[in-house]
Amino acid sequence: MHSYSEILNIYQESLSKINSNNSPLELYEPISYTLESGGKRIRPVLLTMAYNLYKNNIDYAINAGLAIEIFHNFTLLHDDIMDKSDFRRNRPTVHRKWDANTAILSGDAMQIQAYSYLSKYPEKHLKKIIEVFNKTALEVCEGQQYDMNFETEQEVTTDKYLEMIRLKTAVLLACSLKIGGILADAPEKDIDNLYMLGINLGMAFQLQDDYLDTFGNEKDFGKPIGNDIASNKKTFLLLKALEKSSNIKKEELLSELENNNKEEKIKNITQLYKSLEVEKESKELMETYYFNASKNLDVINVDSDKKTEIRKVFDKLKNRIS
Amino acid sequence: MHSYSEILNIYQESLSKINSNNSPLELYEPISYTLESGGKRIRPVLLTMAYNLYKNNIDYAINAGLAIEIFHNFTLLHDDIMDKSDFRRNRPTVHRKWDANTAILSGDAMQIQAYSYLSKYPEKHLKKIIEVFNKTALEVCEGQQYDMNFETEQEVTTDKYLEMIRLKTAVLLACSLKIGGILADAPEKDIDNLYMLGINLGMAFQLQDDYLDTFGNEKDFGKPIGNDIASNKKTFLLLKALEKSSNIKKEELLSELENNNKEEKIKNITQLYKSLEVEKESKELMETYYFNASKNLDVINVDSDKKTEIRKVFDKLKNRIS
Repeated sequence: MHSYSEILNIYQESLSKINSNNSPLELYEPISYTLESGGKRIRPVLLTMAYNLYKNNIDYAINAGLAIEIFHNFTLLHDDIMDKSDFRRNRPTVHRKWDANTAILSGDAMQIQAYSYLSKYPEKHLKKIIEVFNKTALEVCEGQQYDMNFETEQEVTTDKYLEMIRLKTAVLLACSLKIGGILADAPEKDIDNLYMLGINLGMAFQLQDDYLDTFGNEKDFGKPIGNDIASNKKTFLLLKALEKSSNIKKEELLSELENNNKEEKIKNITQLYKSLEVEKESKELMETYYFNASKNLDVINVDSDKKTEIRKVFDKLKNRIS
Repeated sequence: MHSYSEILNIYQESLSKINSNNSPLELYEPISYTLESGGKRIRPVLLTMAYNLYKNNIDYAINAGLAIEIFHNFTLLHDDIMDKSDFRRNRPTVHRKWDANTAILSGDAMQIQAYSYLSKYPEKHLKKIIEVFNKTALEVCEGQQYDMNFETEQEVTTDKYLEMIRLKTAVLLACSLKIGGILADAPEKDIDNLYMLGINLGMAFQLQDDYLDTFGNEKDFGKPIGNDIASNKKTFLLLKALEKSSNIKKEELLSELENNNKEEKIKNITQLYKSLEVEKESKELMETYYFNASKNLDVINVDSDKKTEIRKVFDKLKNRIS
């Protein structure tokens, strides 16, 4: 089986070569800038590992992995405009380095490029993979819209939140694994399990992101802890705390949300999360999703030793501190 | 053969039904708003007419026409953000009625929807149509980028301008006609001619837009004449005038471009266009493109009477005053 770093290297090399000489430069330069900027490449790697469960030579899966990674980076590019984010992976975002128009148009072109890589597949796979991709891509847009809605919505529940992260984060991981299975001509049942594995992993991943933003170690995390709390972001932790707290605790929480002293606010709300056992619940839910993902992998109908590399990814993600 | 208005009705009805009940509303409402807003629907109509050259029942072509029309409207939606346009077809643009984030995300979703309609085709046509669509969609982005570049570029030639409008306008018409031919299993040679017909028609169409903005009749045109002149837009007329004029005339033209009296500026530059015979040249070039489009239609290998409806479109476009 191919390891994470082997597969990652293949993608890093391919992604660094995309469009480097196309014209107009104003359109293609921001695309190269975005694609060369690194990241875990978790989606294409998992797509390829899913394929690798069935086929030894992974070359055939690479174009689909590129499609997914380009699409993912397109969503980040447009999300950064919408969220007015100035930095991503320690570099200025495209709309800051260039401008919003550039970021809009280069993003649009990336979405088309994602489809171009998918379209390289022969007819027998093309229709299947493009259908799951279309459905997923639209769900990602819906997730982003729900996320934006939450900023002003009063009645956000943890259920709504979980549905939002399913759409915004989990379905694209699930789609990646499913496409890996489709391209390898895996049995229908395995393909469904690969999809659910991706959903469970994606949910766990996002909950962990929220968790680390509050309970991570600043030195390991690589960025300041407590940003979500400071900005009143409706994370699972906050929503769960609001749902669980009653009377006095709830008033305490609501008044802390208005606290202008950032350090005090972060300290006090973190403490409330602990005393309300929201930290514990969040961790447990995360572990349930990881456990379910692991169950999905168990029932996939290939030799256990073929699953080693995907299991390593689980461990790596589970134990991540940043 | 099906007439323009028959085909138009089919599209108007289908487009008015897209997404009306999907959620989140904030994502899908602007899409419905955009798609119900009318327009000539020239691209899907021509796609369908191309198909109708070979097949009597046009049902099979409709999903592809919808894909093209949704894609076209997506480009308008994003272009309107980039160009800061407040109105389109006498209604507020999406980013004015809602906001820029809504316009970005709804546009992204429309692009995916365009692909979803294309993906409805069976494998034997899917790969072919999606390949021509990918290529075209990327060219449209390139055209929009060149158009934006021209605003600040000093050395724009008429050649560069013609290449820009080929990308921004003509290729999508050409792609529409080509897809109509592919879906009808037309001979390769006919498909190539349908594509070239679209290119020639698209070039003529865009040159005519520029022409009418200066030489149209305000009452017929439906909006003020001379906008392009007032805003120093680098149209074929202005670029040709700059290329043709020498010494005194050139200085006159350059100084008029700085004229702050809008009415005087429009009147004087229009006069310069006439005296430099730029009006005449523009008209002749437009007619050449229409003539070439007509030649492309002539050599398409179907009975002449089947071509009647497309010929009517030529006449309609050629004689349009708005």
